[in-house]
Amino acid sequence: MLNPELMSLENQVFRCYLGWSAILILKIFAAGIYTGLMRFFTATFANPEDLMSPKLKVKFDDPNVERVRRAHRNDLENILPFFAIGLLYVLTDPAAFLAINLFRAVGIARIVHTLVYAVVVVPQPSRALAFFVALGATVYMALQVIASAAF
Amino acid sequence: MLNPELMSLENQVFRCYLGWSAILILKIFAAGIYTGLMRFFTATFANPEDLMSPKLKVKFDDPNVERVRRAHRNDLENILPFFAIGLLYVLTDPAAFLAINLFRAVGIARIVHTLVYAVVVVPQPSRALAFFVALGATVYMALQVIASAAF
Amino acid sequence: MLNPELMSLENQVFRCYLGWSAILILKIFAAGIYTGLMRFFTATFANPEDLMSPKLKVKFDDPNVERVRRAHRNDLENILPFFAIGLLYVLTDPAAFLAINLFRAVGIARIVHTLVYAVVVVPQPSRALAFFVALGATVYMALQVIASAAF
Repeated sequence: MLNPELMSLENQVFRCYLGWSAILILKIFAAGIYTGLMRFFTATFANPEDLMSPKLKVKFDDPNVERVRRAHRNDLENILPFFAIGLLYVLTDPAAFLAINLFRAVGIARIVHTLVYAVVVVPQPSRALAFFVALGATVYMALQVIASAAF
Repeated sequence: MLNPELMSLENQVFRCYLGWSAILILKIFAAGIYTGLMRFFTATFANPEDLMSPKLKVKFDDPNVERVRRAHRNDLENILPFFAIGLLYVLTDPAAFLAINLFRAVGIARIVHTLVYAVVVVPQPSRALAFFVALGATVYMALQVIASAAF
Repeated sequence: MLNPELMSLENQVFRCYLGWSAILILKIFAAGIYTGLMRFFTATFANPEDLMSPKLKVKFDDPNVERVRRAHRNDLENILPFFAIGLLYVLTDPAAFLAINLFRAVGIARIVHTLVYAVVVVPQPSRALAFFVALGATVYMALQVIASAAF
């Protein structure tokens, strides 16, 4: 495939990257909104100007809020690099079948990660598995990109 | 417009995305520099090797430093996803007028967010408003990208 | 160079961006894995479901774990914006020699930053120097992108 066509909607690999990236953007934002809701439910506000009542004080150690914040931060550490490397991987013109399934693996694994971490706490190794499936797929893409850049 | 032309400087939508993205990159870095300055002013250093005088100890709870760090983290949670989805949205060839105003909304709202959060603390709902304007515009782009990928 | 060719492997500037981006993706993930290993070595787990033994309790203040987490967060604050602006900078068709050396400077400086911050603690100003080399190169790219978007 010629390079300018790789980033068009006619390329099913790019299209798959496009769809899963947008879904994961919404997933990251969902974690942010969920943090906000959890702050309301537990009355845990980090800034004086956010306090809903003069009786409240700023609080930083609610375990429910902190759990969602850890899940959210884990998204930043893993999904944001995927956005960058996924696009570059598309530009190396990978085999469609493999690339599409890698994107699906990252997308599904990261949604599962949030569910078992912050929504319904499921015992380990469920979260570790979801983490490593997404990480493995992203590392594979990075290695393919390095190979394309080098040779 | 043909796809390869979408990412050129001749496309005013891409050009607008380009300009606002670069401005928001500088805004994120400004938050980082501001954190560093605040650490100096309040002598709040997180690492033993950063202590400027043998009398100082590491400190993690200065409210001014923590406030800037929360604003900075909020940038990572919201602006970095915008970089990814904004580019993909440009590639769906959106109507120029709408796209340009969405980019402006995100850019201005995120600058206002930092100002009212970390520079001059303005009572709520100013920060919430700035947050939701940028979030709403970015979510809209993500939904449009999903629609383009699906149909 | 014509715009559609800028993002192809025939463009050595893009190729250099590609390689360093992928290396820095792996570097960010290395910081994440290193955090996990440090949690095991120091038995510092943030979630009840992660505790390896019923005698352990959740812990949030191990200085070794927190140090790696600060280095990791600093990566998110600085490397993720580079992924976005580096790509846009490639699309402004910069002089190859300058662009390639800027990418190298960012890549090497950020690897050095992690080494002197989280692996072997080296006295300041080593970390500050690594931080500002990468920041300076990225800010320069952002300014060039703004100039291209504006004129």
